[in-house]
Amino acid sequence: MLPRGRPRALGAAALLLLLAVGFFLFGGDLEYGRLRGAASLDGELTRDHNRSACLPLRSLLPKCELLHVAIVCAGYNSSRDVVTLVKSMLFYRKNPLHLHLVTDEVARNILETLFHTWMVPAVRVSFYNTSKFQAGAVSWIPNTHYSGLYELLKLVLPDALPPDLARVIVLDTDVTFASDIAELWAFFAHFSDKQMIGLVENQSNWYLGNLWKNHRPWPALGRGFNTGVILLWLDRLRQAGWEQMWKVTARRLLLTLSSTSLADQDIFNAVIKEHPGLVLLLPCLWNVQLSDHHTLAERCYSEASDLKVIHWNSPKKLRVKNKDVEFFRNLHLTFLEYDGNLLRRELFGCPSQPPPQAEQRQRALAHLDEEDACFEFQQQRLTVHRVHLTFLPLDLLPSRHDVTLVAQLSVDRLQMLEALCSHWPGPMSLALYLTDAEAQQFLRFVEASKVLSARSNVAYHVVYREGPLYPVNHLRNVALAQARTSHVFLSDIDFLPAYSLYNYLRASIEQLDLSSQRKTALVVPAFESLHYRLSFPTSKAELLALLDAGSLHTFRYDVWPQGHTPTDYARWREAQAPYQVQWAADYEPYVVVPRECPRYDSRFVGFGWNKVAHIVELDAQEYEFLVLPEAFTIHMPHAPSLDISRFRSSPAYRDCLHALKDEFHQDLSRHYGAAALKYLTALQRSRSST
Amino acid sequence: MLPRGRPRALGAAALLLLLAVGFFLFGGDLEYGRLRGAASLDGELTRDHNRSACLPLRSLLPKCELLHVAIVCAGYNSSRDVVTLVKSMLFYRKNPLHLHLVTDEVARNILETLFHTWMVPAVRVSFYNTSKFQAGAVSWIPNTHYSGLYELLKLVLPDALPPDLARVIVLDTDVTFASDIAELWAFFAHFSDKQMIGLVENQSNWYLGNLWKNHRPWPALGRGFNTGVILLWLDRLRQAGWEQMWKVTARRLLLTLSSTSLADQDIFNAVIKEHPGLVLLLPCLWNVQLSDHHTLAERCYSEASDLKVIHWNSPKKLRVKNKDVEFFRNLHLTFLEYDGNLLRRELFGCPSQPPPQAEQRQRALAHLDEEDACFEFQQQRLTVHRVHLTFLPLDLLPSRHDVTLVAQLSVDRLQMLEALCSHWPGPMSLALYLTDAEAQQFLRFVEASKVLSARSNVAYHVVYREGPLYPVNHLRNVALAQARTSHVFLSDIDFLPAYSLYNYLRASIEQLDLSSQRKTALVVPAFESLHYRLSFPTSKAELLALLDAGSLHTFRYDVWPQGHTPTDYARWREAQAPYQVQWAADYEPYVVVPRECPRYDSRFVGFGWNKVAHIVELDAQEYEFLVLPEAFTIHMPHAPSLDISRFRSSPAYRDCLHALKDEFHQDLSRHYGAAALKYLTALQRSRSST
Repeated sequence: MLPRGRPRALGAAALLLLLAVGFFLFGGDLEYGRLRGAASLDGELTRDHNRSACLPLRSLLPKCELLHVAIVCAGYNSSRDVVTLVKSMLFYRKNPLHLHLVTDEVARNILETLFHTWMVPAVRVSFYNTSKFQAGAVSWIPNTHYSGLYELLKLVLPDALPPDLARVIVLDTDVTFASDIAELWAFFAHFSDKQMIGLVENQSNWYLGNLWKNHRPWPALGRGFNTGVILLWLDRLRQAGWEQMWKVTARRLLLTLSSTSLADQDIFNAVIKEHPGLVLLLPCLWNVQLSDHHTLAERCYSEASDLKVIHWNSPKKLRVKNKDVEFFRNLHLTFLEYDGNLLRRELFGCPSQPPPQAEQRQRALAHLDEEDACFEFQQQRLTVHRVHLTFLPLDLLPSRHDVTLVAQLSVDRLQMLEALCSHWPGPMSLALYLTDAEAQQFLRFVEASKVLSARSNVAYHVVYREGPLYPVNHLRNVALAQARTSHVFLSDIDFLPAYSLYNYLRASIEQLDLSSQRKTALVVPAFESLHYRLSFPTSKAELLALLDAGSLHTFRYDVWPQGHTPTDYARWREAQAPYQVQWAADYEPYVVVPRECPRYDSRFVGFGWNKVAHIVELDAQEYEFLVLPEAFTIHMPHAPSLDISRFRSSPAYRDCLHALKDEFHQDLSRHYGAAALKYLTALQRSRSST
Repeated sequence: MLPRGRPRALGAAALLLLLAVGFFLFGGDLEYGRLRGAASLDGELTRDHNRSACLPLRSLLPKCELLHVAIVCAGYNSSRDVVTLVKSMLFYRKNPLHLHLVTDEVARNILETLFHTWMVPAVRVSFYNTSKFQAGAVSWIPNTHYSGLYELLKLVLPDALPPDLARVIVLDTDVTFASDIAELWAFFAHFSDKQMIGLVENQSNWYLGNLWKNHRPWPALGRGFNTGVILLWLDRLRQAGWEQMWKVTARRLLLTLSSTSLADQDIFNAVIKEHPGLVLLLPCLWNVQLSDHHTLAERCYSEASDLKVIHWNSPKKLRVKNKDVEFFRNLHLTFLEYDGNLLRRELFGCPSQPPPQAEQRQRALAHLDEEDACFEFQQQRLTVHRVHLTFLPLDLLPSRHDVTLVAQLSVDRLQMLEALCSHWPGPMSLALYLTDAEAQQFLRFVEASKVLSARSNVAYHVVYREGPLYPVNHLRNVALAQARTSHVFLSDIDFLPAYSLYNYLRASIEQLDLSSQRKTALVVPAFESLHYRLSFPTSKAELLALLDAGSLHTFRYDVWPQGHTPTDYARWREAQAPYQVQWAADYEPYVVVPRECPRYDSRFVGFGWNKVAHIVELDAQEYEFLVLPEAFTIHMPHAPSLDISRFRSSPAYRDCLHALKDEFHQDLSRHYGAAALKYLTALQRSRSST
């Protein structure tokens, strides 16, 4: 055995001291001067970068320092990318963060709701509207880059961000973290007093200008820099007159170059070529660029044992045959599919002020009794679900006299979507209750479906799963709130409407002159098929024939007749014109109402009474119920959901539902006074009869 | 603006130097001497630990050094825990690992298959059988700890592990990593030449002996040490006569103490009390113990910004109200639900020899043509799915004249399990195709179900999802291979057998004197209900009545009659005794066969022809088909699966299936020669007729 212990430890200590001293001398030298003639220095640079990556940068950081991150984001797809980026960042971070999001209207609507419902402790989010700067500030710059004008906004950040914000890390939406962002922030400590921009070398030969004959890129130092990850020392830039600086350079170059090819990156590089002293070169691992020819990136990471930030700056077709790409893909998938709810964790040792709604919720949760048989119900009601609105692109103009189909589903009902699309050509607003991984499955499902990918008027809103009970009414409310038409058809995912229903409803709304002020609920009679290979009726006559033949039934005629009896199917059979019907206990028709109708009562979770309560609310607010003579919708058979199975098998579940109903009626009485008496009477009558 | 840059960096460098020097002096002192009077030293210890946690231990490690980890694991539930532990370890590791697993038969069967199919690069696994050591080595020690005798095996590791293994990290199954294990390994470099065991202080007051009146724990220094995480310098222990040392101590103490309360931990502590020089005290963050009263753990982690290893050494009821526990729970859930396939990634910079089957697969994948219309099919066939056998505890004795129901399912069919259990009281072997997150959902589903948790003769084998196509036949083979009875009933998850079927089959096997050598396939006639609220027939007479009434049909009578026509339903109606039928094209009955029957052809993935091919194989091997007169099984309706929808909508999918069939027939001819001609003829006839 070799003698080990102290002598060995001291030897190691000496080695570390050497390394540490080496780094700081070297770190001080890491300014642009060394990059001159970059092409020939490659090898040396790579080695240096790796060495620096091993160093304990965190120890330079005051614990709990607030780190600032700016991201420019526009549109539906980039908003999804930002979520993955933010997840990776949050997974490794140990500091409070302030995100500065420069967004268009679409991204703002998505991300504001997302962060509001995500409630991550020690994360602040500020929004800045792109349109404010875009018009004057950068739209004059001709540009051919795929990410359009938005990337150019990175140039105006020193002016766009608050004047008291001194330093910020700027990220492209297509980067993924594999390390703690505080290590990146720590490089600000290595800026000389002249330096204001931290960048990684560009890992392609683009700026060398020899890719093809007459290839004329914008000027850059050597390979230039990549602007997917930038450290910006904002107040120095402001003081140095950055705005003037880049505009002068850009204007002059645009006299001879027709447009920027790589947006802001071209201009950053051109300015740096003229003022190399501005830049601190960052180690390549902080922006590993997976563009099409990534041999240069490979040179960067091949000697490293870990990566810091990956930049997907290429069309994302990842060929499965490359072992390295598989590694990167796995890292990306890790965060795509990572349960974002798990990131709602406190930072140890950095006390933060929770958002007011979180605190309130925490207090309410603390008051719950875990031994209560209905604990799960109460807990579920207090759950704030993360919501990602319009998960997929949407192209929809608000319109009058139009109807949006509103429904909700979980992943086991995805198969219904294609059929539903073939039955309903109009706009839809659907809430999907999914895990993060299922959301990706959903994405692939839509991409693989010709029917679904051809539609641009279907809005999909992802509500992330949390807790044991299906929050059916909350889902309905999310979908309802996003409808953009005057009216909504409140449906369920396992119903297929008559092929003609969409046009018929639009015509009816117009003919009946239903403004969005008029309190009318158009009833669409509901039927059911017990046969899963139904030849769907194309007219009322065909439907009646199937009904007479016993192939169709009125909905739940055998197990829950009171749900639809008031629709009066006998009268409907003969009806030529809309007719009014009266509310009765447990009535739960499928209705078309103005978008401003009352919301669903979200305390009803799981199975049971969730629609009934909504119809009571409509009646209490004096909506009239008008049955449409040519309208119908048919329930398709499916295996019972887990919630229904649970309801059927558990008396405790039914008791909790009872308690919810009682609460609901108390609230009704408080709200509507004597007018609500009839609902209570009906409830009591139904209980004494069972 | 403050002047920054070099002067500041140099200042920081000086600070770092100071810290580094400080640590190594301190590190050298981190031996037991300082722990004397631990109770009063708490505060100081905590501070020291945190400081050391910030230090760059990785830099002391030779890159790519192979790290050794030993884990003792027995039984079904611990095997699941080990997987979570290993996932967390692999997520953060950057070194090649060698796992030494000391297991009982159950855990070995599970973990051997798991690692074999997981194929993680740069991970070697060795198994050691507990029974070999257990009997003589530790079974004489009386012990009342919940984890039983197995934990005691940690004492014999110096002898049990290979003599050339010098150092090892020993882990309990209930720990989770939140950091790179190499940082823990680096502490070996801090051992003095007398030290051989690295341990964290115990974070409870147990060993202080004041928890209740007459509380008499085993002797320990102060609070003692926790053995959930141990660094063992094996060759030093062997040289120092460790076996003798602990046995002498244990025997002496057992004269006055009746048994160990905390298994190996009591004995480790007793030995250390006598030989304190053996121990290096590790920082508390390397074993944060979440036992019931974790105020001491809190003192450890509350000042830290990151944790290293979490130890769940308490009944796992995690109360939701505690913010910290929510943090820990989230970390644990992260790895419970983490997609283990993503850990199949190469280590950068540490070349490793891939296992032979991985290399072969890589080569085959490289030969595939991505532009081929059937690329997905070919790729799916080459996919090696991770398999976790017997995911839940099983209590099943092998038996003769018995039948196991074999089937496979994905998460959308979980609802079928309860009904299936009520129809089939006998043993079942089910393969579940799930993601890691769905496997947890499945676990909760079983726990919440009285019917399912009451059964101990249902084996659930989890096959982890990967790729776009459902590997139906591979799933069947996994379930089939795990059957422990003489015969198997090859069923599908959406079928409910007659209530009497299990007993009837056992009786038939006995009456017909079917040995497992006899090539007989008993045919169970299949019917279908189009109605999802079927009142299930309790006898053949009732079934026939429903058939006549049109409430039941013979299976797929309208869309795929050839699948079951050869069963001859007309004859079955009248039959009193088993009768033989002949194979015909596309025949795919549900059969009972000896367990040693041919496997399914796993090239058939997705939907179509997967059972047909198996029946062809049975016929080619000259099985006789015998229809049982009282047997029946009924298909319950459900929404079509995604694979069926795809099959129906895609001509390319059908073309690929054609190609698979052709391949299958070529192989048949190769195998059975002229005898296989009839299958080819049948195939050609069916093609020319469509």
